[in-house]
Amino acid sequence: MTTSTPIPLDTVLAHVDSSLDSAVERLFNLLRIPSISTQPVHAPDCRKAAEWLRQDLSAMGFSADVRDVHWAAPGHPMVVAHDATQAGKPHVLFYGHYDVQPTDPENLWKAPPFEPRLVEDATGRKVIVARGASDDKGQVMTFLEACRAWKAVHGSIPVQVSVLLEGEEECGGANLLPFLKEFSDELKADVALVCDTSMADRTTPGITTSLRGMMAEEIVIECASHDLHSGIYGNAAANPIALLCQILATLRDAGGRVTLPGFYDGILDPSPETRAQWKTLFPDDAALLEEAGLSIAAGEKAYTAIEQTWCRPSCEINGISGGYEGEGFKTVLPAKAMAKVSFRLVPGQDPDKIRKAFRAHINAALPADAKVTFTAHGGSPGFEVARDSQFLAPTLKALTDEWNVPAATIGCGGSIPVAGEVRDALGLDALMVGFAQADDRIHSPNEQYGLEAFHKGIRSWVRILAALADAG
Amino acid sequence: MTTSTPIPLDTVLAHVDSSLDSAVERLFNLLRIPSISTQPVHAPDCRKAAEWLRQDLSAMGFSADVRDVHWAAPGHPMVVAHDATQAGKPHVLFYGHYDVQPTDPENLWKAPPFEPRLVEDATGRKVIVARGASDDKGQVMTFLEACRAWKAVHGSIPVQVSVLLEGEEECGGANLLPFLKEFSDELKADVALVCDTSMADRTTPGITTSLRGMMAEEIVIECASHDLHSGIYGNAAANPIALLCQILATLRDAGGRVTLPGFYDGILDPSPETRAQWKTLFPDDAALLEEAGLSIAAGEKAYTAIEQTWCRPSCEINGISGGYEGEGFKTVLPAKAMAKVSFRLVPGQDPDKIRKAFRAHINAALPADAKVTFTAHGGSPGFEVARDSQFLAPTLKALTDEWNVPAATIGCGGSIPVAGEVRDALGLDALMVGFAQADDRIHSPNEQYGLEAFHKGIRSWVRILAALADAG
Repeated sequence: MTTSTPIPLDTVLAHVDSSLDSAVERLFNLLRIPSISTQPVHAPDCRKAAEWLRQDLSAMGFSADVRDVHWAAPGHPMVVAHDATQAGKPHVLFYGHYDVQPTDPENLWKAPPFEPRLVEDATGRKVIVARGASDDKGQVMTFLEACRAWKAVHGSIPVQVSVLLEGEEECGGANLLPFLKEFSDELKADVALVCDTSMADRTTPGITTSLRGMMAEEIVIECASHDLHSGIYGNAAANPIALLCQILATLRDAGGRVTLPGFYDGILDPSPETRAQWKTLFPDDAALLEEAGLSIAAGEKAYTAIEQTWCRPSCEINGISGGYEGEGFKTVLPAKAMAKVSFRLVPGQDPDKIRKAFRAHINAALPADAKVTFTAHGGSPGFEVARDSQFLAPTLKALTDEWNVPAATIGCGGSIPVAGEVRDALGLDALMVGFAQADDRIHSPNEQYGLEAFHKGIRSWVRILAALADAG
Repeated sequence: MTTSTPIPLDTVLAHVDSSLDSAVERLFNLLRIPSISTQPVHAPDCRKAAEWLRQDLSAMGFSADVRDVHWAAPGHPMVVAHDATQAGKPHVLFYGHYDVQPTDPENLWKAPPFEPRLVEDATGRKVIVARGASDDKGQVMTFLEACRAWKAVHGSIPVQVSVLLEGEEECGGANLLPFLKEFSDELKADVALVCDTSMADRTTPGITTSLRGMMAEEIVIECASHDLHSGIYGNAAANPIALLCQILATLRDAGGRVTLPGFYDGILDPSPETRAQWKTLFPDDAALLEEAGLSIAAGEKAYTAIEQTWCRPSCEINGISGGYEGEGFKTVLPAKAMAKVSFRLVPGQDPDKIRKAFRAHINAALPADAKVTFTAHGGSPGFEVARDSQFLAPTLKALTDEWNVPAATIGCGGSIPVAGEVRDALGLDALMVGFAQADDRIHSPNEQYGLEAFHKGIRSWVRILAALADAG
């Protein structure tokens, strides 16, 4: 590592503060483009948003272009841009997306979704309201404005920057992985930065460093060759719903642990420091579950609710069906029953091995005259930023400096495909840094992004870009 | 009991044999009336069948009439007839029904369903084919022909006979119980005889002496206040499908026994003789289950398949539903899940007590932040003819004499409402004697009744009527 004189930050941060109004105006211009990727009628709007971003990046001095994708429908283009003024410095690849969700139900919006407004919420907090405000146009622009400020003040960004902006994140994103593979030489950097996530809580910045993967199966158990009358056959004929219940009930023990042999093999707990940080952030399971109308964490007793969702694998029954499901009662003894079961996986777990263990569990539990059919769905491992990544500590410190609260490494119970795809195609760790809040109503009417999130988000990236300059 | 000179049977049986053709012709006339009770367009046909039977009974010397019912739709009339020539002798109340099932799918009938034919089946056996042949017009006429033969030869039937023929058995029969109650003084007899069941097997006559009752519940378990994303909440939020599976899986133990406290209280096993007889009739569980496409009896291991359905209570899950049940996969963590559960009950069990135990089992198993809603369905106890009924042994002996095979007391896993209603309204035991076969295709196209069943059925009743004369 080459040490260098610390780059003067204060002038860049001051520039961000003094030019906030014009940054908001630029964001509003982008928000006015209805780039709904899933609705074919908006395909030209998606291209328009891509063009707008290309022009903005070009105006800043990036070499930027709009590239068509051709692997899968709908084929909204990618924006790719490079700023090579700092060759020799660490190279970051920034990822965001310019497409947005549909706006229905339209009548629940207090103002048209593509006419962005700056309003005060009930608590007096200023928020930007529009479709895409926080997911993800507002977050994309925090990074671009940080780059702009560096260039305006110092003529250059402290690190080498490439930008990749997708137009299909909200509609499957099937073109991203093949695109990354096709242009892997061009896009390969030292680390990826993704801005599409939330803060740890309203005042605590965070880097999402782990995601859960998923392995899912649909199972159909068949017993009799046709539906039977439960009076004539009840007791003597195997009941596929009862078999299904027995099999599914034994997937977890009384302590909430999944019982499949080898299920927990390879899993590492978060560090004691991380667990302590989470405990400080989310001391009360009941408070965390309140929004869902619940109060008791249902998973492994040795873990808090936040640990259960962020760093522990789950086994969920997502659907079940069999026999008579309508009004009233029918005494049918059905021929078959179906369940959809998914496992959220954490790093260390092997989806294929767990699929095999699951199928073996079911096969072993069935009587000889019952049949089972399996249909595989999904099968992706969990994701975790390398715990010794040299980019992690400087980024956390930059966030801590900006927010005056120790930044947290946090998890996410679901999947964010880009993280795994960037690792698979480019071999890069992705640091997911975002400034959204749980109440930003992404995907819902009246989506919003706090003005402070936007402002301090820009300032955060200004600091992160400086901090990463010495992390190579 | 008054002993009397045995009544000469042989001349009556010979009369039955020599007049079989005209008996078949009478049955054909009844079968030609399309008395489908569930289709309003056939209401006049139902009344026509009732009229036909009234006339036939009157012609034999019964005082017979057709009586309207008014408690529930559709209101097809009852036929009531009395033959009082043997006042002082035991009084039997015969029950049957003149209504039939619809005929769809019409195109699967080899000949029109209301144009009865006498044909040979694949094995050379002569069968009567028509809707209602075995369910229940053919069976009703076995009894009426036996009465006719007694009157033709001896001028009287050996016992006092009342006849009650219903027109709503195939469409709910909601008028039967209030009718029995309204006319209980008139209809009260010493024993009821019901002809609407099958033989033990093709060559073994039987009396159905026990039926299972039923208690059913629909349960809905609710956890979260709305559907959740299994990525965000999976593990920490209670899954109502998983709770439902755990609760339902523990309703039976590994040996197939229902685990509810007190569930088996009050149940008596059949006598060793009865169990031995059943073992002879149905030695092989796999053979019995073959028609259902199964081979292993799924209930309590200490009982054979036939015992499991005839004399042991069951617990069946008749329906289950929750989460995403369509094509593909959705990683929803649903807010609620539903199951329909029924218990077939045998004599001795108390439906109310079992309902309470079931609800307690579920309430005890739920976490404090889950809710359950119960909806009661059904609630009728099992039925059994008094084991010491003085009418049982003579009837069994009469059947044994006719078929040259020891007659069996058999069970039925389902319900035959008339048995319980006759007991409730009139305080009578009902002996269910029938000559149908499992392959008679009742309720299906090409319904049939063996000519031998019809012929020997008449002869069986001739013998039973004589045998009961001394059982008072």
